[in-house]
Amino acid sequence: MADYLSESDPGTRILRRCDELAAISRPGTGVTRLYLTGEHRAAMELVSRWMREAGMTVHTDHAANVIGRYPPAAGGRNGSLLLGSHIDSVIDAGKYDGPLGVIAAIDCIAVLNGEGRRLPFGIEILAFGDEEGTRFGTTLIGSRAVAGTLTPQDLAIRDKDNISVETALRTFGLDPNALASAARSPGDVLAYVELHIEQGPVLEGEDLPVGVVTAINAQTRKVVTLKSEANHAGTVPMRLRHDPFLAAAEIALALEKTASGIPDAVGTVGQVDVRPGASNVIPGSVTMSLDMRARTDALLRRLTAAMDGEIERIAQARGVGLEVEPMLETKAAPCSPGLIGQLDRAIGGSGIKPLHLPSGAGHDGMAMNALGPIAMLFVRCKGGVSHSPLESVTAGDVTIAANVLRDFIIGFDPEKS
Amino acid sequence: MADYLSESDPGTRILRRCDELAAISRPGTGVTRLYLTGEHRAAMELVSRWMREAGMTVHTDHAANVIGRYPPAAGGRNGSLLLGSHIDSVIDAGKYDGPLGVIAAIDCIAVLNGEGRRLPFGIEILAFGDEEGTRFGTTLIGSRAVAGTLTPQDLAIRDKDNISVETALRTFGLDPNALASAARSPGDVLAYVELHIEQGPVLEGEDLPVGVVTAINAQTRKVVTLKSEANHAGTVPMRLRHDPFLAAAEIALALEKTASGIPDAVGTVGQVDVRPGASNVIPGSVTMSLDMRARTDALLRRLTAAMDGEIERIAQARGVGLEVEPMLETKAAPCSPGLIGQLDRAIGGSGIKPLHLPSGAGHDGMAMNALGPIAMLFVRCKGGVSHSPLESVTAGDVTIAANVLRDFIIGFDPEKS
Repeated sequence: MADYLSESDPGTRILRRCDELAAISRPGTGVTRLYLTGEHRAAMELVSRWMREAGMTVHTDHAANVIGRYPPAAGGRNGSLLLGSHIDSVIDAGKYDGPLGVIAAIDCIAVLNGEGRRLPFGIEILAFGDEEGTRFGTTLIGSRAVAGTLTPQDLAIRDKDNISVETALRTFGLDPNALASAARSPGDVLAYVELHIEQGPVLEGEDLPVGVVTAINAQTRKVVTLKSEANHAGTVPMRLRHDPFLAAAEIALALEKTASGIPDAVGTVGQVDVRPGASNVIPGSVTMSLDMRARTDALLRRLTAAMDGEIERIAQARGVGLEVEPMLETKAAPCSPGLIGQLDRAIGGSGIKPLHLPSGAGHDGMAMNALGPIAMLFVRCKGGVSHSPLESVTAGDVTIAANVLRDFIIGFDPEKS
Repeated sequence: MADYLSESDPGTRILRRCDELAAISRPGTGVTRLYLTGEHRAAMELVSRWMREAGMTVHTDHAANVIGRYPPAAGGRNGSLLLGSHIDSVIDAGKYDGPLGVIAAIDCIAVLNGEGRRLPFGIEILAFGDEEGTRFGTTLIGSRAVAGTLTPQDLAIRDKDNISVETALRTFGLDPNALASAARSPGDVLAYVELHIEQGPVLEGEDLPVGVVTAINAQTRKVVTLKSEANHAGTVPMRLRHDPFLAAAEIALALEKTASGIPDAVGTVGQVDVRPGASNVIPGSVTMSLDMRARTDALLRRLTAAMDGEIERIAQARGVGLEVEPMLETKAAPCSPGLIGQLDRAIGGSGIKPLHLPSGAGHDGMAMNALGPIAMLFVRCKGGVSHSPLESVTAGDVTIAANVLRDFIIGFDPEKS
């Protein structure tokens, strides 16, 4: 542990740990570490070790979240300041989306602990097991378990291999019936604050290392299944076809057009499964994901209502069967003005202009919002590129961000959040 | 063998064998029997046994085709009448596309052999190992080996698991260097005649059990790869995206529009692979198949030239990288007027109107055309449905088709083909 802090530059030591965690991955071009897999378990063990070395007591809840606790000074108040982020990834991800927030928070505590310093409140770091939703298609399983907003329906959702969340938890050695014990009570939570890479181009454009998030965008995710009958690609005249892939193509283009017409809204088709999937067979079914986001709940409703109409119209015009399954529906999560002000002061203290920006990406704060006030500190990433092995941050920016987070923690006033 | 012919209805006994062969399949909804797999080997063994029981001598060539030979009467002429079809399948296929032609031909020989009857020419039945191209994306490996038109480039093509045709042949116990020995010389081939289900709706519409093919349509198959950079679905504004799936969607719709504007032309996108394939990630690359067919070489050129332009234009407009890989290019294969006349007479002899129709699907005759005159007898299938577990024929139609084929064989005049 003395060794860890002997490197005086927080950015360098944090990035070294990001590399170490990134090595725990399914083989591939980038990082692939899915919820409740062997890679997830190995990552949990590594993060637990780092937490313990930073002077924290560590436990794992029944949603496979790792929680490290740094106790308050004697006579400190009840309730904890929660820090953290997630340690799962998308497929072929970069090294920083999630892990940077966990590792930077651990670094802050390591420094405080190295100085023998306790604060008048407890601090907990949460390393959530599922934020991305890569394995089960539904996101935030980890933080929703902590927020107490996970439902029995969520546990029934199945991955590509037809394994349910419930079964996967059991196989991982956890007890789905004890999930309620993972939920925290709002009275215990003073605030939830997360450091994360921006995953967008705004900070780079403004030439700033960090920024303060104003709100996490509202988001809806659906799975659309279009069904017809597979047939021979050579013998069915074009006019007699009911090709579900052509319906999917029209839906994707309609989503692009509709989202482009609404301010700050985005829509993405990221997952497409065409069956049976042979070059000489007219597809029999297509399953596609629709991810839609907007700055406010009202703008998102405009987008989803328009798309509901488009999907229905396209499926009907092409004579293909239609199923629409809602996967996720999250309201816009505004950050706490009090916490934004405290982060602004910490940034200003480093001589940097405190820029405010919305988060186009979803984050665990969306779930944690149910427990108490939330805030986020964004770190500039190269080209705004994320969810890609090309994800990149500089040690200089990470040093600034870690210092801002530590200053924020030290100055944290629960009464003004 | 006496047992086999004791069922006097050819359709019933042929369909029973189609069921038996269909049971050799990868588990799934329909039949999945790919080239050079364990299922393929088991099918080869079953077909070999049936051929031997019908009085044929059997061997396997180095492309994994099974060849049964029924010798001519004493003093018969040189050269053989070739019959046959393929025993591989698409994914989740029906029971009749391919196997019906092999099994019906064996039935004809079994009847002749049961009567102790030899003809003034030898007869060979070929059970081709690859016609569909499901495993390697390139079709007709079996019949092209027999035609001597397989190239070293074909052997280098790889399947989804990155196994080349050459390696797969070796693993199967065959010698790719000896493939040339599978090629037949044109002088040995009197004609190639194939019985096959129509796989289209024409015969059903005309209320006819069988029909005679005039030509096999020209066909082109390409693989188009569109490349960009994977990125976060929430943070990149619509106007800054270069989403390769949206380019793929436009290409698929352009293919539909272009093919619809050319008489009897069809175009299909059957295989689509979107990477990395997560709902919250803008795709980084898309690979899609384009299958294009038309009645004549000139009409097909019109379709492919128009699509080459569309693909280029769409990729450029969206700023995504483009690779186009030609997978297959086959000319229209006209059937021999002499053989068509002989099939017409055999059909007329059964009191049925001899309808002529083109084949929208590709067949082994496209390759066998290089060796000598070809002809095809189509059998009505329910709803025109093929490449689907719903593929269906009646025993009555199959009896008529088998009788027509046998009458054709008995009356076959090589001088008039």
